[in-house]
Amino acid sequence: MEKAVVLLSGGLDSATVLALARAEGFAVHALSVDYGQRHSAELVAAVQVARQLGAADHTVVAVDLRAIGGSALTDDAIAVPTSGVAVDAIPVTYVPARNTIMLALALGHAEAVGASDIFYGANAVDYSGYPDCRPVFVDAFEALANVATKAAVEGRRLRVRAPVIDLSKADIIRRGAVLGVDFSLTVSCYQADDEGRACGVCDSCRIRKAGFDTAGISDPTRYQPAVV
Amino acid sequence: MEKAVVLLSGGLDSATVLALARAEGFAVHALSVDYGQRHSAELVAAVQVARQLGAADHTVVAVDLRAIGGSALTDDAIAVPTSGVAVDAIPVTYVPARNTIMLALALGHAEAVGASDIFYGANAVDYSGYPDCRPVFVDAFEALANVATKAAVEGRRLRVRAPVIDLSKADIIRRGAVLGVDFSLTVSCYQADDEGRACGVCDSCRIRKAGFDTAGISDPTRYQPAVV
Repeated sequence: MEKAVVLLSGGLDSATVLALARAEGFAVHALSVDYGQRHSAELVAAVQVARQLGAADHTVVAVDLRAIGGSALTDDAIAVPTSGVAVDAIPVTYVPARNTIMLALALGHAEAVGASDIFYGANAVDYSGYPDCRPVFVDAFEALANVATKAAVEGRRLRVRAPVIDLSKADIIRRGAVLGVDFSLTVSCYQADDEGRACGVCDSCRIRKAGFDTAGISDPTRYQPAVV
Repeated sequence: MEKAVVLLSGGLDSATVLALARAEGFAVHALSVDYGQRHSAELVAAVQVARQLGAADHTVVAVDLRAIGGSALTDDAIAVPTSGVAVDAIPVTYVPARNTIMLALALGHAEAVGASDIFYGANAVDYSGYPDCRPVFVDAFEALANVATKAAVEGRRLRVRAPVIDLSKADIIRRGAVLGVDFSLTVSCYQADDEGRACGVCDSCRIRKAGFDTAGISDPTRYQPAVV
């Protein structure tokens, strides 16, 4: 059974990606990164998603990106925008090099467990402002991965897969639903409360809600009482 | 004054690289990574080196690579070899994707502080067995960096510099000595004690000692009493 490392955030994109990797027959080594994000609800969600979708194991690596800062997600002094999704601008929720750092950790994990594939839930449609969610970035990372490791030097090629990169949120939801993803376990909100309930007004909540609407699938998200 | 991020390990290669960056006129933002290595003496050394060589500031980012393991440096169950430097094999002190992870953190820091250059003390001569110390790796990382960040998308090119990559250890020592590096502050040993004293027998100690011998420069390394 081929092994794959799947970066699992606790959101619905990476949950769907995990389900896709399982459907391809991979033994999935899920990897989540505790990078000092505003809340830990998404890591709790990741644990539940990994279990629901039959990951072989689930590892959480801590990296303190608050030491670097520069984002609303890692610096409490920068507020999370709640007034609507901006167009044609990189939002303050962008974390400097976060996806590069997470893929680098996935690369180390892939080498340690002997995985041939890394699955990554980047999406270029809804997050068009994020440079590290574009196909050109994924291709550059795969090129790097294939010169960076002992495995690569020994001739074992590593694939970096981003199977939902060009799908709309609605299509990701439809795909996940077919594969049996329990979306009620996932947390997308940038500022969920301790119980994993969503704010309903940050960019991530707005994009998620619109995705369920468009997909014609009932939204199982638990929202905070104040905003319902 | 242009800004540069310098990855600073506390060893002599990165100390020399920091001195080179200063000599080029950069304001240096030193970055060290606490990745769960066997001892913290090298991080103490990094603090002292940053101060001695006039870094503008020094940041330490923690990332728990022990969660991944797979190396003698991050897994206490794997012993550090002390019987001599092996030829044509990647040693067990290789940490899966470590340099990719450290460069990714440097990339995030560079973006957060607005740096144009990342300096990296890789050396392809003494560590020929490490895939992530080769020029092809540095080039691939630079290519990635220039599609990965908000700065790159906005047209600010980032340079990834490895100025000692093709120098012998003796030449690095000669270069550092000219630039005023106080090598007595640096720690290269894979298993230094709490006071930063070297074991004298691990690969890193052997390569360092031979470098001072060849350079004809007195070795200021403090060794543990048992092995002197």
